[in-house]
Amino acid sequence: MYRTHSNGELRLANVGQEVTLAGWVQKSRDKGFMIWVDLRDRYGITQLIFDEDRTPKEMVEKAKTLGREFVIQVKGEVIERVSKNKNIPTGEVEILVKELTVLNASLIPPFTIEDETDGGDELRMKYRYLDIRRNPVKNNLIFRSKVAIETRKYLSDQDFIEVETPVLIKSTPEGARDFVVPSRMNEGQFYALPQSPQTFKQLLMVGGMDKYFQIVKCFRDEDLRADRQPEFTQIDCEMAFVEQEDILNTFEGLTRHLLKVVNGVEVAEFPRMTYDEAIKKYGNDKPDIRFGMEFGELNEVAQHKDFGVFNNAELVVGIAVPDGASYTRKEIDKLIEWVKRPQVGALGMVYVKCNEDGSFKSSVDKFYNEEDLAKWAEATGAIPGDLICVLSGVADKVRAQLSALRMELATRLGLRDPKVFAPLWVVDFPLLEWDEESKRYHAMHHPFTSPKPEDMSLLDTDPGKVRANAYDLVLNGNEIGGGSIRIHDKATQALMLGHLGFTPEQAKDQFGFLMNAFEYGAPPHGGIAFGLDRLVAILGGQETIRDFIAFPKNNSGRDVMIDAPSKIDDEQLKELNLKLDL
Amino acid sequence: MYRTHSNGELRLANVGQEVTLAGWVQKSRDKGFMIWVDLRDRYGITQLIFDEDRTPKEMVEKAKTLGREFVIQVKGEVIERVSKNKNIPTGEVEILVKELTVLNASLIPPFTIEDETDGGDELRMKYRYLDIRRNPVKNNLIFRSKVAIETRKYLSDQDFIEVETPVLIKSTPEGARDFVVPSRMNEGQFYALPQSPQTFKQLLMVGGMDKYFQIVKCFRDEDLRADRQPEFTQIDCEMAFVEQEDILNTFEGLTRHLLKVVNGVEVAEFPRMTYDEAIKKYGNDKPDIRFGMEFGELNEVAQHKDFGVFNNAELVVGIAVPDGASYTRKEIDKLIEWVKRPQVGALGMVYVKCNEDGSFKSSVDKFYNEEDLAKWAEATGAIPGDLICVLSGVADKVRAQLSALRMELATRLGLRDPKVFAPLWVVDFPLLEWDEESKRYHAMHHPFTSPKPEDMSLLDTDPGKVRANAYDLVLNGNEIGGGSIRIHDKATQALMLGHLGFTPEQAKDQFGFLMNAFEYGAPPHGGIAFGLDRLVAILGGQETIRDFIAFPKNNSGRDVMIDAPSKIDDEQLKELNLKLDL
Repeated sequence: MYRTHSNGELRLANVGQEVTLAGWVQKSRDKGFMIWVDLRDRYGITQLIFDEDRTPKEMVEKAKTLGREFVIQVKGEVIERVSKNKNIPTGEVEILVKELTVLNASLIPPFTIEDETDGGDELRMKYRYLDIRRNPVKNNLIFRSKVAIETRKYLSDQDFIEVETPVLIKSTPEGARDFVVPSRMNEGQFYALPQSPQTFKQLLMVGGMDKYFQIVKCFRDEDLRADRQPEFTQIDCEMAFVEQEDILNTFEGLTRHLLKVVNGVEVAEFPRMTYDEAIKKYGNDKPDIRFGMEFGELNEVAQHKDFGVFNNAELVVGIAVPDGASYTRKEIDKLIEWVKRPQVGALGMVYVKCNEDGSFKSSVDKFYNEEDLAKWAEATGAIPGDLICVLSGVADKVRAQLSALRMELATRLGLRDPKVFAPLWVVDFPLLEWDEESKRYHAMHHPFTSPKPEDMSLLDTDPGKVRANAYDLVLNGNEIGGGSIRIHDKATQALMLGHLGFTPEQAKDQFGFLMNAFEYGAPPHGGIAFGLDRLVAILGGQETIRDFIAFPKNNSGRDVMIDAPSKIDDEQLKELNLKLDL
Repeated sequence: MYRTHSNGELRLANVGQEVTLAGWVQKSRDKGFMIWVDLRDRYGITQLIFDEDRTPKEMVEKAKTLGREFVIQVKGEVIERVSKNKNIPTGEVEILVKELTVLNASLIPPFTIEDETDGGDELRMKYRYLDIRRNPVKNNLIFRSKVAIETRKYLSDQDFIEVETPVLIKSTPEGARDFVVPSRMNEGQFYALPQSPQTFKQLLMVGGMDKYFQIVKCFRDEDLRADRQPEFTQIDCEMAFVEQEDILNTFEGLTRHLLKVVNGVEVAEFPRMTYDEAIKKYGNDKPDIRFGMEFGELNEVAQHKDFGVFNNAELVVGIAVPDGASYTRKEIDKLIEWVKRPQVGALGMVYVKCNEDGSFKSSVDKFYNEEDLAKWAEATGAIPGDLICVLSGVADKVRAQLSALRMELATRLGLRDPKVFAPLWVVDFPLLEWDEESKRYHAMHHPFTSPKPEDMSLLDTDPGKVRANAYDLVLNGNEIGGGSIRIHDKATQALMLGHLGFTPEQAKDQFGFLMNAFEYGAPPHGGIAFGLDRLVAILGGQETIRDFIAFPKNNSGRDVMIDAPSKIDDEQLKELNLKLDL
């Protein structure tokens, strides 16, 4: 037995006991006649003391040779500390060491194993096993594990069955690019790695499993944007004999449970908002509603004056920035620069200062009088002391621009407290979205989402207007889950695939197995999938998902630590009947 | 809301309530004026009654059109049944239907959805979603889910953290063949799918996670033997600061917990046996110890007589078959045929009948007298009434043959009751095994297993004799888990890789990341991995793992239902810089 206790365990009540501890040398202080060592493991830190009077001489000598991150085992007596450390749970005791064994030495680590490390990102990734020793990363992994446990607990208690679905599946053309896996046993054929277990979970519903979930790895061979991994984890769920309302209630329950047990936060019933409303009010289908700053549309009150920019715009829209009237000219100029950055893309910004005395001062005073501007204030909800920021242009674009500005200002104003949680259901998503590049409609969610029955008639006449039984769960401005009520009959599924540009042959070839299944008594069903990586990061109050993943990949999809992907040898290629075509 | 209750829920106490149910038509009986329908869902069956006197006429008419597996919704009143069915929990009530809605029709299913189905294997696989509706498969999936939940619960309670390790990793040459995944972002390079998260869990130990587990999919691109899947699931575990004893205790605890909560069986402390002893006593490193029939070695008492076959054999070994003395000549001849089948491969079999009167009758009476045969009986533990079966030849082969015979006879004698559980630790496995084909030693477990310190000196002189700190957990003749104490220092790891035929360059190229990690304070550590598929099947009292997998693949690695793997298009190949070389 290497240890009798962990390093987070001993208290005053243990004084007098002989114990064996093991762990890493966090640091040591050598006062000549006395040496203190902080011994660390996952559970905490315990102070060791080597004392010339009370510790065998050779142990003291050996203690002097200990470097940071050496792995040691000590035997000794728990004694009360003279100067207590109130900051750690073991701070009232220390171990008077009688025996010291070095279990493994360590080179000097390339960065400090401290909460605030001196290691840069790349170095920390290369030595990820050292990075994981640091409390922030270690605690993130423990936190992630807890979220997964509590998710499983909640869903199991609700009669959900966790079923494993295959990882080696068939490639389908819809959605993002598939990773493919050549099959040695089936010449010239490939498996794909799943982007989600979508069709399998639907088959489980056809199979009568009634309530399914799985915490499951999924894969997407996309060019990686910042903080997006080629492999990611989903909480994947599906229920039979349900309407949208049943699903929203169930997964509102799950989210509320997680917020309660993981964050200790009680949240009221989640508000709901239609997609159209979210776009209109926040310019965004995943609005952060921790704060207001709702959009005020100004076409009525700002057009038909002499200001051509506005008159020619499809949409004039503004937000009120709390206490923004105090911004200096320079600060406002910087804000204008900010919205004109290519990442945002606005051509300019009009502003109105709402002075404390009720008067207004705007950048377009030439065109608008006080009465006009008072109407702007009313439309944006601005009160004296606020700054109204107004953008104009093509509706879609200007909404996205103003949304970016709204988020940026809220961040600057400290309105995006990661300890505050504001969940929101966004419902009634459009079924289809037009893709300029391919000149056809794509499924906004996926091809299995059902249209709202009352909108079915629009499918032929005005496809873009058809609403879907689809919903997203938004938390603090992030989409953390999305789902839909599915199509469960062959005819509707065939119709939908037709609208997505599939010929009947293609539809049969790709999704025939699912449509066949629908002919044998498929129940009404629907579901949702949560992105676990993002969910964990948000609940954990952090922006980046990478620090909640033990071994993440960098933006080229590379594991910098183990050097994957790598070349495989010619023999393997030959066995797979593949040739490289470089 | 599609239903107020499930079909397994209603009892006499609910009589008088108006309820809404939904589910599948299991069967219907049409008596003209009355129609009974068994309505099924995951939770059970509820009987519906359509009655000309009490049900609206058009509902009765509609009920007459219902076919098997139609999905329906009914509203009605819970009434007490006249003739009660004591076999099902809902058997005291039925629903007097007032409203009937057909939610989805069904074609006639290709096989019956009954516990005993008329569907053959292939058909059931092709329509797996229908097969899952059958109780045996459905209950297996629920059982599997329960084993996973209880595993997670037990390990979490013991402070294990579940950490997800990557699926897209680096290909390594040791072990079985890897599935590979071409990387579009890194030309000419490939990921591999993990055969186990071995190196990652060791890095987590170096990273101080202390206790890790994961229930995780692993992959092996092997030719598939019967009931072996290319993707399989492991309960993967690792602990730091442990000796073998700590690991055995921890995972004996897990197994005991599972047997208790999943099977309701209390098992005494698990016996332990060395690998050598298992081979000697049972001819097998995963002996089924639900029954005796231990091997008796007969070289001493059977050689040096006039029987040349035995005199020339490396090993003469027998087992006592309980009550086998009563076998007829014909039955014994059949047994001899059985051991001579190519799958077993014995050249013949000598037998001795131990008569009830204490006398013996053998097939080699010419060479051995009663006194000789009494010694055979003593060595094999045979008592009057038993049959002694004796094989001879090269030790390895003859042990395997006798082991096969032992298992076959035990099956025939009904000694392998799937409701009886006999776990066993097999310890002290050899570190290396000689491979004739490649003319070199291979790691019996894997290259990270540590040799026993006391055997280290044999590494150069007699490598085959070196024992490892390796152990298997055996349950009813199946290896359900295996693990080892790992090497945790660079020098020993390099030495081991050298013995496995790696040049220092190859060792560095393949496992440099791990050996580097060992230089930064790697703690002593070890672990174990359980094959979840096999474990679940054995706990579930069944032989085949396939029926515990929702969507298994056939022996060609194909998913017969969705037709995977399949061809990918030329554009995808081009993007991956691959050419097919058929």
